[in-house]
Amino acid sequence: MTKITMLLIVLILAIFNLVNCEYQYETKLFKVPLDHFGYQRNESFNIRYLVNDSFWDIGSGPIFFYTGNEGQIETFAQHTGFMWDIASSYRAKLVFAEHRYYGHSMPFGNKSLDNEHVGYLTAAQALADYADLINYLQGDRLKPKYPVIAFGGSYGGMLSAYFRMKYPHLVTGAIAASAPVHMYPNMVPCEVFHRIVTSSFKIVNQKCVDNIRSSWSELRTFLGSQNNSDWLKNNWNLCAPTKNSTDVQSLVDYLQSMFETLAMVNYPFQSDFLMPLPAQPVRVACQYLSEKLNGTQLFAAIGKVVQVYANYTGKTDCVNYKNTDYGNLDASGWDYQACTEMIMPMCTTGVDDMFEASPWNFTKYAEDCHKKYNVYPRPDAARIEYGGDRIKAASNIVFSNGLLDPWAGGGILNSISSTVTAVVIIDAAHHLDLMAANAQDPESVKMARNIHRQNIDKWLREFRDEQSKRH
Amino acid sequence: MTKITMLLIVLILAIFNLVNCEYQYETKLFKVPLDHFGYQRNESFNIRYLVNDSFWDIGSGPIFFYTGNEGQIETFAQHTGFMWDIASSYRAKLVFAEHRYYGHSMPFGNKSLDNEHVGYLTAAQALADYADLINYLQGDRLKPKYPVIAFGGSYGGMLSAYFRMKYPHLVTGAIAASAPVHMYPNMVPCEVFHRIVTSSFKIVNQKCVDNIRSSWSELRTFLGSQNNSDWLKNNWNLCAPTKNSTDVQSLVDYLQSMFETLAMVNYPFQSDFLMPLPAQPVRVACQYLSEKLNGTQLFAAIGKVVQVYANYTGKTDCVNYKNTDYGNLDASGWDYQACTEMIMPMCTTGVDDMFEASPWNFTKYAEDCHKKYNVYPRPDAARIEYGGDRIKAASNIVFSNGLLDPWAGGGILNSISSTVTAVVIIDAAHHLDLMAANAQDPESVKMARNIHRQNIDKWLREFRDEQSKRH
Repeated sequence: MTKITMLLIVLILAIFNLVNCEYQYETKLFKVPLDHFGYQRNESFNIRYLVNDSFWDIGSGPIFFYTGNEGQIETFAQHTGFMWDIASSYRAKLVFAEHRYYGHSMPFGNKSLDNEHVGYLTAAQALADYADLINYLQGDRLKPKYPVIAFGGSYGGMLSAYFRMKYPHLVTGAIAASAPVHMYPNMVPCEVFHRIVTSSFKIVNQKCVDNIRSSWSELRTFLGSQNNSDWLKNNWNLCAPTKNSTDVQSLVDYLQSMFETLAMVNYPFQSDFLMPLPAQPVRVACQYLSEKLNGTQLFAAIGKVVQVYANYTGKTDCVNYKNTDYGNLDASGWDYQACTEMIMPMCTTGVDDMFEASPWNFTKYAEDCHKKYNVYPRPDAARIEYGGDRIKAASNIVFSNGLLDPWAGGGILNSISSTVTAVVIIDAAHHLDLMAANAQDPESVKMARNIHRQNIDKWLREFRDEQSKRH
Repeated sequence: MTKITMLLIVLILAIFNLVNCEYQYETKLFKVPLDHFGYQRNESFNIRYLVNDSFWDIGSGPIFFYTGNEGQIETFAQHTGFMWDIASSYRAKLVFAEHRYYGHSMPFGNKSLDNEHVGYLTAAQALADYADLINYLQGDRLKPKYPVIAFGGSYGGMLSAYFRMKYPHLVTGAIAASAPVHMYPNMVPCEVFHRIVTSSFKIVNQKCVDNIRSSWSELRTFLGSQNNSDWLKNNWNLCAPTKNSTDVQSLVDYLQSMFETLAMVNYPFQSDFLMPLPAQPVRVACQYLSEKLNGTQLFAAIGKVVQVYANYTGKTDCVNYKNTDYGNLDASGWDYQACTEMIMPMCTTGVDDMFEASPWNFTKYAEDCHKKYNVYPRPDAARIEYGGDRIKAASNIVFSNGLLDPWAGGGILNSISSTVTAVVIIDAAHHLDLMAANAQDPESVKMARNIHRQNIDKWLREFRDEQSKRH
C-alpha cells in the first residue's frame, strides 16, 4: 500500500467519524450511598457519569443533565443528539448520569443483580443519586450557581419528570420525552400499547396487519411437524429449530417483541438505537407483507422481516429467538424493576391489535416475579410515590410523545397546566425529539424541538430572574 | 356513701372530663413496608393512627391529617387542639398518624431501636408511610375524593411541609408550625437557638439572664467540695449528689436543657405538653431570679426553678438530672435521627446567650454518633432531599413561627411566594398556634389561627374547583 493510499484511508475514516457524530466526553465516577433512605446498610459505591464541558460558559452556563435510564449510559449519550445539538448555543455543560445497577454503575460488581443484592435498584434511589450528583456539580453550594435542565427519554423521561417533581430545588425544568407515566395499573387500558403498535403498521398497509394477525395460528399449526420446523430454521436462519411447545412460544414471543420494537424505533433514518435498523423499519417490514399471504409464502415473508430486525448489518450468525435481552441496552435490571415498582400492565385482544389475545393476569405476573426474584410487586407504589395523573402541583415539565410510539398510550397528551405541558408529535416514534437533527426529520419533530428550546429559554430566564433577586 | 353522693361524684368527674378536653378517638393499625424505597427487605409492620369521624361529612368532608413526629401519637393528638377546635366547622375527619419507631409503631417490637433494626427510621420512610395511609383513607382511588390538609408542629411541622413538597398529589395544603427547616448545617448560625432562649428570659428580666449566665462557673466551683455537693442534693432534692466531673457535667447539661425547654414551652396557660408546667413558666422561673444573686442564694433560687420544672405536680420523688429523656414524648428514637440525617448544629457563645461557650464540633459529633449507633451522619442529606431554603417551587404551605420559640431561629419567617407563606406570631412559644384555643391566648396567636383557617378555606376551594372540573 502506498503512503498516498494510506493517507486517503485515514482521511476517509476521519470524515466518516465526523459524519457519524461521535460525541466526545469524559467518563467520571461519583460516590453515592447504597441506601439514601435508610441507614441500616452503610455501603457506598460509584455511579458513572459522562461530561462534556467544551461548550460550557463556566461562569453561568446551564447544566443539561440526562437522567439515565435502563442501560449503559453511553447508549443514551450517543442517541440524545438534541442535547448535543443545542449545547453550543446555550453554552451548556452536558452531563449524562448512569442509572444504578446498569452499565458500570454496579454496587456489587457482577453480583449486583443477584437476589441478595438487587433490592436497592429503584427509581427513588436513582433519583437520589442524581440529586447528590447535582449538589456536587453545583460545588455543594447552598444557593445553586448553574441552572439545571433535566432530559430523559422513555423510563429516563419518567425519571426527568419525577426529578423535577421531587427535587424542584435542584432542577429548573425537565424535558420528559416519551415517558409513559400513566402506564401503571388501572390508569390506561392494558391493550393500548399493542393497539398503537398495530396502528403503526396499519398506517403503512392494512394487509401487513392482516398478514401478521393471521400468522400466529398458521405458525403454531405449521410448527406441529419437525420437517416444517427444520424448514423454518433454514429459511429464517434460526440458531435452533423449535423442538417443543416451549420453543414455539419463545419464537412467538420473539416475533411479537420484534413487531413491538419495530414500531417503537420506527425512525425516519437508519439508526442503531436498540439494534441496527434501516430507516422507517415498519415500512421496510411491510414491504414484504403488502399482499395477503399464507402458508410458506407468509412464513418466508416474515422471515425477511426477521432478517431485517436481527441481521441488518449482515454480521449475525443466526437468529437467537430464545434470547430475550433488550438489544443494545444491556437492560437486564429492568425485569427486576418491572417486578417491583414499575408495574405496567400489558395485554392483547387479537381484535384491536394484530396479536394473539392474551389478558393481563396480575396474580400470575406476581407469582412469576416471586419465583424469579423472591419479591412480590407493589402495584400501587409508583402511582402513590409519583402522583399518577395528579401532578398539577408540579411545574416546568414538558411531556412530549410521538403518536407512532406505542408508549404514547401511557403518556401525557394534554397539557395539565401552563407549566406542565404536553407536546404531541404526530409522526414520530419513541423519543425521536431527543435525537440529533436529521435531514429525514418530519416537520412535526422540528417543531417539537423548537418548543423544547422555548421552554428551556423560559426556565433559564426564570432561574436568572430568581438569582438576580437574591443578589 | 349515699346514692346522691355517688351521683354527685360521677357528675363532677364528667364535668372535669369535659373541662379537661379529653379528645375521643379510635386507635387503628395500618400495614406499611419496612422499606418503601428498596426491596431487599420485604418485611412489613403496623403503624398506629388515631381517628375521629364524629365531625366528618363522609360525602366530601376534608381529612385533617397530623403528620406525627418523635413521640407517641396520643401526645400530639392531645396537644393539637386547633385541629379539634376547627373539625366541626369544616366537618372534617381527624387523623393522627404515628411516626415509625415511636410510640407503638415499632417494626421490631421492643428491639426496634437496636442498632441492627433502627436503620429504617428516617423522615422519607415516615412520609411514605403517610402517603400509603392517605391512599388507603381515600379508598385506594385514582382520583382522591377528600381534600387532605396536613398539620404538624416542630419536627412534625417539617414533615407536614415536606409531605406537601414531595406528595402534593396526596395533600392539598400544609400547616407547618414551628418547623425548623433551616436548622441544617451552614444554613443559620449555630448559636441562634440559644440566643432566642436567652432573649425569652431577657424579655422578662435582664437580671434573670445575668444570674443564669453567672451561675455556671459559680456552680462548677461550688461543686468542687463534697459538702457543697451534698448541700445541693438536699436543697434541690436531687436523686444523687454530684460525685465527680461527669456528674457535674450531667447537672450542667440538665440545667441548660431545663432553660431551653422552659423557653420552648413558654405558654400563657398551664400545660403538660412536655411536662407539667405552670402558665408562663419563664416568667415563673425568673421570679426567683429577679435580683442579682450569688453563692448559695443563687443556687437556692435556681433550685426553686428546678422544682417548678421537675416537680410542678409535686409527685416527683427526686430530681433525676442524669436522665436525658424528652419529657412526656418517649422520643428516644430522635437521638438516632439526629445522628443520621437530622443534623442541626447547635452552639453557645456565652456572649449572645446566657450559657457556657461551647462551639459546634461536627467531627466530634460524628464520632459520638458512630460510637453510639455505628453510623456516620450525612450532614447534607436532609438539605439535598428537602430543599433547604430553595423551596419556591412548592405551594400551599404555611410556615408559622412564634418569636418566643428558640426553634424559630431555623424557621421560615418571610413568605417565599404567594402560596408558600410565613406567619410570624410575635408572642408565642413552640407551635402554640396548633394548641387548643385558651382564654389566656395572646391576640397574635388568635390572628395566626384565623390565617390558618383562611388558607385552609382557600386550599379546600382549590381542591373542589379542580374536582368539579374533572366531573
